Amino acid sequence: MATPVYTPFVFLLLLFQSRVWGFPVRQTPQESPTCGYKSCHATKPGMLNVHLVPHTHDDVGWLKTVDQYFYGDRNDIQHAGVQYILDSVVDQLLKNPDRRFIYVETAFFYRWWKQQTDDMQNTVKQLVNEGKAREGDEATTHYSAVIDQMTMGLRFLNDTFGHCGRPRVAWHIDPFGHAREHASMFAQARVIRAHSNLNPAPSPPGILPNGYNPPEGFCWDQSCDDPPIRDDPDLEDYNVDDVVTRFLSIAHAQALVYKTNHIIMTMGSDFQYENANLWYKNLDKLIRYVNQNQSNGSGVNVLYSTPSCYLQELHRANLTWPLKGDDFFPYADSDHDFWTGYFTSRPALKRYERISNSYLQTCNQLEVLGGPISRKGPFGAGYSETMKKAVAVAQHHDAVSGTEKQHVANDYARRLANGWAHCQVLVSNTLSSLSGSSAPRVYCEHLNVSVCPLTETSKKFSVNVYNPLARPVSWPVRLPVNGTAYSISDANGKAVDSQVVPVSQATAAVRRGRGYAVNELLFQVQAPPLGYSTYSVSLLQNGPPSPQSSPLSRAPTAVQNFFLSPSFRSYSLLSLCASFVTLRDFLSSLLCVCFPRYNASDGNNSESIQMSGAYIFRPNTSTPFIISKTCIYLHVFQYNSICRRPTKTFKRFIPWFSPWVSQVVRLYTDSRALELEWTVGPVPIGDDLGKEVISRLDSSINSSGVFYTDSNGREVLQRRKDYRPTWNLRQSEPIAGNYYPINSRAYIKDDKDQLTVVTDRSQGGGSIQDGSLEIMLHRRLLYDDVRGVGEPLNETSDIYPEGLVVRGRLLLSLSPPATAADTHRPLAQEVVLQPLITFTDGELHPSTRLEFSGLQAVLPPAVHMLTVSQWDQDSVLLRLEHQYQASESKEPSQPVTVNLQKLFSTLDVLGVSEMNLSANQWKDEMTRLDWKKHLPKRGGDPSVWEVNLKPMEIRTFLLRVRQR
Amino acid sequence: MATPVYTPFVFLLLLFQSRVWGFPVRQTPQESPTCGYKSCHATKPGMLNVHLVPHTHDDVGWLKTVDQYFYGDRNDIQHAGVQYILDSVVDQLLKNPDRRFIYVETAFFYRWWKQQTDDMQNTVKQLVNEGKAREGDEATTHYSAVIDQMTMGLRFLNDTFGHCGRPRVAWHIDPFGHAREHASMFAQARVIRAHSNLNPAPSPPGILPNGYNPPEGFCWDQSCDDPPIRDDPDLEDYNVDDVVTRFLSIAHAQALVYKTNHIIMTMGSDFQYENANLWYKNLDKLIRYVNQNQSNGSGVNVLYSTPSCYLQELHRANLTWPLKGDDFFPYADSDHDFWTGYFTSRPALKRYERISNSYLQTCNQLEVLGGPISRKGPFGAGYSETMKKAVAVAQHHDAVSGTEKQHVANDYARRLANGWAHCQVLVSNTLSSLSGSSAPRVYCEHLNVSVCPLTETSKKFSVNVYNPLARPVSWPVRLPVNGTAYSISDANGKAVDSQVVPVSQATAAVRRGRGYAVNELLFQVQAPPLGYSTYSVSLLQNGPPSPQSSPLSRAPTAVQNFFLSPSFRSYSLLSLCASFVTLRDFLSSLLCVCFPRYNASDGNNSESIQMSGAYIFRPNTSTPFIISKTCIYLHVFQYNSICRRPTKTFKRFIPWFSPWVSQVVRLYTDSRALELEWTVGPVPIGDDLGKEVISRLDSSINSSGVFYTDSNGREVLQRRKDYRPTWNLRQSEPIAGNYYPINSRAYIKDDKDQLTVVTDRSQGGGSIQDGSLEIMLHRRLLYDDVRGVGEPLNETSDIYPEGLVVRGRLLLSLSPPATAADTHRPLAQEVVLQPLITFTDGELHPSTRLEFSGLQAVLPPAVHMLTVSQWDQDSVLLRLEHQYQASESKEPSQPVTVNLQKLFSTLDVLGVSEMNLSANQWKDEMTRLDWKKHLPKRGGDPSVWEVNLKPMEIRTFLLRVRQR
Repeated sequence: MATPVYTPFVFLLLLFQSRVWGFPVRQTPQESPTCGYKSCHATKPGMLNVHLVPHTHDDVGWLKTVDQYFYGDRNDIQHAGVQYILDSVVDQLLKNPDRRFIYVETAFFYRWWKQQTDDMQNTVKQLVNEGKAREGDEATTHYSAVIDQMTMGLRFLNDTFGHCGRPRVAWHIDPFGHAREHASMFAQARVIRAHSNLNPAPSPPGILPNGYNPPEGFCWDQSCDDPPIRDDPDLEDYNVDDVVTRFLSIAHAQALVYKTNHIIMTMGSDFQYENANLWYKNLDKLIRYVNQNQSNGSGVNVLYSTPSCYLQELHRANLTWPLKGDDFFPYADSDHDFWTGYFTSRPALKRYERISNSYLQTCNQLEVLGGPISRKGPFGAGYSETMKKAVAVAQHHDAVSGTEKQHVANDYARRLANGWAHCQVLVSNTLSSLSGSSAPRVYCEHLNVSVCPLTETSKKFSVNVYNPLARPVSWPVRLPVNGTAYSISDANGKAVDSQVVPVSQATAAVRRGRGYAVNELLFQVQAPPLGYSTYSVSLLQNGPPSPQSSPLSRAPTAVQNFFLSPSFRSYSLLSLCASFVTLRDFLSSLLCVCFPRYNASDGNNSESIQMSGAYIFRPNTSTPFIISKTCIYLHVFQYNSICRRPTKTFKRFIPWFSPWVSQVVRLYTDSRALELEWTVGPVPIGDDLGKEVISRLDSSINSSGVFYTDSNGREVLQRRKDYRPTWNLRQSEPIAGNYYPINSRAYIKDDKDQLTVVTDRSQGGGSIQDGSLEIMLHRRLLYDDVRGVGEPLNETSDIYPEGLVVRGRLLLSLSPPATAADTHRPLAQEVVLQPLITFTDGELHPSTRLEFSGLQAVLPPAVHMLTVSQWDQDSVLLRLEHQYQASESKEPSQPVTVNLQKLFSTLDVLGVSEMNLSANQWKDEMTRLDWKKHLPKRGGDPSVWEVNLKPMEIRTFLLRVRQR
Repeated sequence: MATPVYTPFVFLLLLFQSRVWGFPVRQTPQESPTCGYKSCHATKPGMLNVHLVPHTHDDVGWLKTVDQYFYGDRNDIQHAGVQYILDSVVDQLLKNPDRRFIYVETAFFYRWWKQQTDDMQNTVKQLVNEGKAREGDEATTHYSAVIDQMTMGLRFLNDTFGHCGRPRVAWHIDPFGHAREHASMFAQARVIRAHSNLNPAPSPPGILPNGYNPPEGFCWDQSCDDPPIRDDPDLEDYNVDDVVTRFLSIAHAQALVYKTNHIIMTMGSDFQYENANLWYKNLDKLIRYVNQNQSNGSGVNVLYSTPSCYLQELHRANLTWPLKGDDFFPYADSDHDFWTGYFTSRPALKRYERISNSYLQTCNQLEVLGGPISRKGPFGAGYSETMKKAVAVAQHHDAVSGTEKQHVANDYARRLANGWAHCQVLVSNTLSSLSGSSAPRVYCEHLNVSVCPLTETSKKFSVNVYNPLARPVSWPVRLPVNGTAYSISDANGKAVDSQVVPVSQATAAVRRGRGYAVNELLFQVQAPPLGYSTYSVSLLQNGPPSPQSSPLSRAPTAVQNFFLSPSFRSYSLLSLCASFVTLRDFLSSLLCVCFPRYNASDGNNSESIQMSGAYIFRPNTSTPFIISKTCIYLHVFQYNSICRRPTKTFKRFIPWFSPWVSQVVRLYTDSRALELEWTVGPVPIGDDLGKEVISRLDSSINSSGVFYTDSNGREVLQRRKDYRPTWNLRQSEPIAGNYYPINSRAYIKDDKDQLTVVTDRSQGGGSIQDGSLEIMLHRRLLYDDVRGVGEPLNETSDIYPEGLVVRGRLLLSLSPPATAADTHRPLAQEVVLQPLITFTDGELHPSTRLEFSGLQAVLPPAVHMLTVSQWDQDSVLLRLEHQYQASESKEPSQPVTVNLQKLFSTLDVLGVSEMNLSANQWKDEMTRLDWKKHLPKRGGDPSVWEVNLKPMEIRTFLLRVRQR
C-alpha cells in the first residue's frame, strides 16, 4: 500500500476514574501528528475501498463474571480471557505499524492497565490514537447511570492518553436495539456512533454488515474454523487465489447496498484476538494479496482502518444522509423472535441496579457536601469509586438487561452490594459531620419487605431521611415494628401523624424469616433539597396489633386524599379482572387492574421453534390467562383514627389475587398518584409451562392504538400498535411485537384523560387493546431461548429455592394530558432518586443538627440536579438538567435560569468551566464532523454564572469550589 | 530465584535437510557460554526442586494432515495451528529470559523456519540452546527409515544452529510403547531419552508423571479450562494461596515415587502453546509465588527447566539406576485395552511406507552413482528430498502406525507418491547416464496386482532390474501380459526360462479394471550389487492363454525346487484349515496354513466397554473363526514345459479360501522360502461385526509358549506367552495381550526346527498355541476405539468402495535353528530393499550398457550397506551394518572388515570421517553423561580405511569422493 508508515494504533474507551487530570489549566492539547483522523491510512479514490476494522467484543459479564472474563477463568463455560487479548493485541500491533485495532471495554482495559509495568504503559500510550465509546444496554438503562458511566470511562482516557485518547465515534455493536436517548447523549458528548444488531434497514452509514462479525469465511480467530491463508506454494493446499476471489466477490456484493465507494468489514467478534497473531498474520496476507490484484485491474483496495477513518471517508463523500427520528425497538432477528423479554428479565436485579444508582447519587452528593471527612472520618475510609464501578459495569447489555447466567447476575448484585458497603461508610462519615452526632448509623436495606432489626426491637430510635433531589420531597415511610402505637416528632419537635397496621400476608411470605415484625409503622416525612431531616420515634404501646383484632371489612370502601378518590365499586365483577378502581382527579375514568399471565412458548409451535427466554418474549397464545378469576380475600383498612383530616389519611387495600400474585393498593397523603405494590412469585411451574406475569390496566381512555414510553428515563416516544415510523412492518407477533422498553413511565391518553404509570425499574410493556396498558412484572421460563446464555430464565435463590419472589411498585396518575407531565416528571424523579432512610438507635444528643440542606434555595421545578460529584480535591462536577420537554407542560416547560454561585450552602464556587456532557472536553473546544442535516451548532453562554436551561437540556460544569 | 539471567532457550529437533554444513573442516565447535547443560537454571540442593518443562506435542498428522496442522486449517476437526505455536513461543521467550521451551517436531519447524525473515531466523538462533530428539512410531517403523529420519532432522539442527543445536536427550512422549531397538539407536546417536505412555512401572528416571501432561489443575493452555492465577487482590476471586497450596501438595506427592530431590513436570500437551502467553504468564506467577513460600519454609523450589537439565541433576545425584533389557510392548492403558491393533492397522499404508523406503534407498544410491546428472538430466530435475521428507513424516506415530483419520492416511500416501515422482526423474536420469540410453523409462507401480500398461500391450520391451543390496540377488519377476509365449534374454544375450500363466481370479478382482492382462509372464532375474541388469522380452505368440484351456487339476501335486519340496498332501481335510503343506529342507515338519478371523469386540461386553479400533485389538472371543472351511477351488499348475531342469521350475498353487480371502502359494527357483501371497478384502460387514483377519501357521514345532519377533527389523527379542520379563503380568486379554509388533520377521522353534516368517510390512502377531504362529493381515472395524481418532478403521476408497482389498506376502522358511538366520537375514533384507523394476519400450540401442554394478566387489554376506546417500557436492554418507547378531549364525556372525577405499566402482574415496549414527557429530568428539551400568565406552578404530564391523554394529562415515 502506498500509505506512509505510521505507528500502529489501538483505540480505546475506558470506564473508570483516576485522579490526575489537570484542572483548571485549560491548555489546548497539542495536536499529535498522527492523532485522530490524521492517522487514517490513505484510500484510493477510484477504487472500492474496503476498511478492515479489527476489533473484539468483550462482554463485561454474560456467561461468566466480569473478572472471570478478565482472567480467562471458567473457560469451561466459555473460552474468553481478556487479559490475554490485551497482551496479545499490543504485541501484534508492535509487529507491523500498518495494523489497527479498536478496544472499547474500559472495565477490562482498566483492570489490565493497572497490572502493566511502566514500560508497557508507555508502550501502549504510543499505540493509542483515539478512544472509542461503547456503552451498555440501551433498553433497560437509565440515562443518569449511562452518563455517569460514559464520564468515568472518558475521564480515564483523558487522564491516561490525553487528547489522542478522546473518542470521535461511538461503537455500539451488541445492544439488542438502540434507544433514541442514547443517540442524543452521544451527540452531546460529541461522538458519532456505529450500530449493529438491528432490524433489516436500507444501509444507513452507521449500520454494519454481518452484525459485528467478519464476512463469512474470513474469521481467523482462534475460535473460528475458517481456512487460513496458505501461501507457501511448496506446501499442500496453496489457497491464495481462492481467498482473493472469495474476498472480491464479498466486497462487490456488499458495495451494492452502500452509498459510497467505501465499505467497512468488522474483523472480529466476541472475545476474539486472545491470540491476535492468528488474525493479523492472515489479515496482513489478505491485504497484500488482494491489493496485488490491483495490477490486474481488480479495482478493490483493502486497508486497515477504524470506524472513525471509515466515517471520515463517508463525510468526505459529501452526500446527503437520511435522518432517523425513531429508535430501534423492538429488535427482532426473525419473524417470531422479538427481543422484548429482556425488557423485564430479572426484575429484582433491574430494581437493585436502579436503587443502587440512587444510592450512588446520594453517595456522590454526600462526598461533596461532607468534604474530606466523608472519605476519612469517624466510621473509617469511605469510597464512592467501588459503587461507581459497580453501577457502571451493571449498565452492560448483559447485566441490567438480565440476559446473563444466574451466577453472573449474582456477581453483579454482589458488586453493587460491595459498592454500597463502601458508600455506607462515606454516608455515615458525612451525616456524622453534618449532624454533629457520631452515633452509629444503621442501614436497613430490606425495608421493602418490612425487615429492619433495629425498628423491630427498639423502643426509641431516630430516622434520618436524606433527599438527593434539588427540591423538597414528601415521602411515605413504612417501618417494620412490633409495637402497636408510636409517637413521632419531626426535626422541629412537632408531632407527626402515624398509623400501625399489620404486615400483609404477602410481606410475611416474601421476607422468609428475615424479620419478625408483626406490624408496620406508617408516617409521612418531609426532607429539604440535597439535605436531610430527622424524625424521632418512641414506642407508646407494645402488644399485638389492634387492627388484626378488628373484623375484616368486606364492604366496598371509598378512600380519598386531597387528590384522589379511588373506590372499589365492585369486586365481585372479577370474571375479567380482579378489582375495579375509579380514580378521580378533576376527571374520572373507569380503570381495571388485573394480573394476567402469558404462558411462554416452549417452541413446539408450527410456525417457528422459538421459545420464550431471557432475551425473547414469545407467548404461546395472544390472549393472556387471568391468574385468578376470583378474589381470594380483600382486606380493607380504614385506620388512623387519631387523624383529624380524613383527606390526609393513609389508605391501604390488600387485594390478594392468588397465592403467588398479590397487590396492595395504597393512597398516600399528599400524593397525586395511587401506589400499586405488587408481589409476584414463586411463579408455579408444576404444569411445565413458563409464565410471564403482567399487570394490566384497562381503562375507558380512547387511546386509538397509540401509547407512549420514555427513552432511558428522559424523552417520551410515541408507539403505535403494529407500526414502525420509518419502515413497513408486517407484524408477526401480535403481543411481543408490540412491546417496548419502559424505563420510568408509560402512558395512554385521549383528548381528556391521560393515564400515566411510573415504574420503579425498567420493564417491558405494551398497549394491546385501546385503553389498555400492560406492564410485564416477572418472568419464569423453562427453556433457554438459544441466544447464547444457555440457561432458562428460572430464578431461584437460597432464600427462594422454589422460585424468586419479586416485589415492586407502579404509581398511577390520571390527569388531563396538558398537565400530566407536571405530575409524572417529579414523580418519576422521586422514584429514581429516592430518599435514603437511615437510623440511629436511642435518644439523639441534644446538640444534634436535625435538619440540613446543601442548597441555598430550592431550585425551580423544571431544574433537576442530575450530577453533583467530587471531581478532584478542588472541583466538583455538576450537571443541571431541564427535566421537561418543550410544550409538555405550561410553566415548567419554559427555559429557566440558575445561578451557579448561589447554589450550594456549604461551598463557595470560585470558578466554572462548561464541558461537554461526558465531561471529557471543554465545551468551547468541541469540534465535530459537520454532518449535513445534523446537529446545528449552539453558541456559548453569555455568562458563566447565570446558566440558562432549555427544555430537556443537560449542561455540564466543572466548578472550582471551596468548603465554607 | 537466585539464578543468573540467561537468554531464554528453545530446544529443537528438526527433520529435514539443508545443504550448508561445513565439511571436511573439522573444527571443534566453539563452546557457547550458555550452551547445553551450562544453560540450566541453578537448583537448590536442600530443597525439592520441581523442573517445569514447557513443551508442546504436535502430531505430524493425525486427525488433520501435516500441512493442515501447520497452517491451522480445518480447525473444525481439531484446533491446532503449529505456525502460530512457533510464532507465539518465540515471542514469549523474548519477554523473560528465565523461560524455557522444548520443540521437537522438525517437520513443522522446518516449514516455519523457511517462512521467517532473516531477522526472525537470527532471533531464533539466539534462542536455540540445544536440540531435542523426537521420533515417530516405535512399533511399526523399520530401523533404516528411523535412522534416515533422525539424520535429516539432526543435520538441519547442525546446519541451522551449530553446536548448540545438538540434542543431548531424546524426547519420546507419545508412541504407543517403546522398542528396544530405538533405545539402541538413540544410544548410538548419543542421546538419552525420556518416555511416557507406558505401562505402570516403578519410577525409572526417564518415565514421566501424568503422561506428558501437566499436573491436574495446572494446565494453562488456551485449550484448557484450569483456573488461571488470579493475583490482583483488588479483583474478585484472588486465588494465589489456593494455587500454591495445590501445587505444593502435588509436588510432595510426586516426590514420594521418585528417587532424588528433583522431579519433572511437563507443562504442555498436544498442540499447546498456540497462545504461549497464557502458559508463561501463569507459569511466571506460579514460580514467583511458590518460591516466595520458601521464606515460610516450604522447602520447594520451582524452576523453568528442560529434560536435559533435569537429567543432569539426576546424574549429579550419583545414584544407581535399574537397567531395562526388554522393551515396552505391548502397551495397554487398561486391563482390556491393549494397543496391539495398530501393529496391523492400515496394512496397505504400512506396505506403501515400506516400499517407499526401499525406493528412497534406491533413489539415494542412484543420486550418488549418477552424480550431478541425476539431479539435472535428460528427464528433467530429479530430487530425493521430497521422498526423504515424505518417508520421514510417514515414520510419525500416527502415520505408519495407521492411527490417523482416513483423509490423513490419504495425505501420507499422496506425499509418498509425490516423493516417488521426483525420485523417478532422478532414477531415469541416472539409469540413462549409466546405460547410455535415453529411451523413456516406464515405471509400473501396480505390478503387485498385475497391472502394467506397457507390458500388457508391447511386443518388445526391456526390463531393468536395479538391486540396492551390496550383494547380487535373484528375484522372480511377474509381468502382466496378453501374449501366451515370450522369449527372454539376459544382459549377456542368454535365453532365460519363463512361463505364462493366467492371472488368478483374486488378481482380476483386486485390480478392478486398472489393467486387462489375462496372463502373467514369469521369469527369474539376477542383478549385481548396487547395480542393474537388463532383460529383453519379445512376444512369440499371441492369443488366449493355453493354460486356461487345460482342465483344472484337482489331484494333489508335489512340487519342489533345489531347497524345498512342499506337497499338498490333503486339501480335503479343510475342517480345521485350508491346506496342509509339508516343507522339507533337511528336516520336515507338518504345517497348516489357514485364515481365521477374530470378530471385533463392539464394546458390549460385561467386563469393559472397550471396542476394537485403530489402536486397540480386542477380539470378542479368544477362539478365531475359520473364514471358510472348504476350498472353493484350487488351481494347480505345472507348466513351463520348455524348462529342462524340473528343480528350477516355478510352481504355483492357488487355493481360494473364500470370496474375500485367497492365497497363492509359490515356490520360486533358487529360493529357500515358500511365498504365501495373501489377498484379503473387501472384508464383509453385513453382519455388523468388525473383523480382524489373521494368517495362522500351525506346525508340530514344540515352541513351549515362546516365540520371537524382531525389533524394528534388527535385533530379535524373545516373547513368552502371558509373561513380561521385568514385571508380574496378570494377563487380562488372552489374545490381544500376547500380540507383539512384527516389523520384518517372527519365528518359533524347538531343538530341531525353526519356522521363520518374513513379512513384507509391519504386522501384529502372536503365538497363542504351541507350534502356532499367527499374523494379523487386515482389520475392518465398525467402531472408533475412543483414543481420539474419532473414526472406525473402516477403509474404503474410490477403487474399493465396498472395502479395501489388501495383498501381501509372507515368506516361510524351515531350518535348523542354528542356521535359520542364514536364510532369514538375507531374505528379510531382500524384502525391505527390493529390486526396482523399470521398463523401456521397443528395441534397445545396441550401444546400451545392459549391466552395471556400483561396487568394485560383492561385500561379505554379513555386511549390509545401510545408507549410501549424497551429503553435499563432494561427500557421501555411508552406513555399513553387520546384519547378524552374535552367535546367531556361524560364519556370518563373525566380525568382518571392509575397506572403504575399495568400495565403489565409480567413485574415488579421498577422505573419510567417522560419525555418530545420526551423522550430527564426529565420532571422536562425542561426549555423553556417563551413567552407571550403562553403555561402556568404545575405542576408536585403528584405521580409517579398514573398517571392522562387529555383530549388529552400524558404523557411519562421511566420505569425501570424486566421480571417476
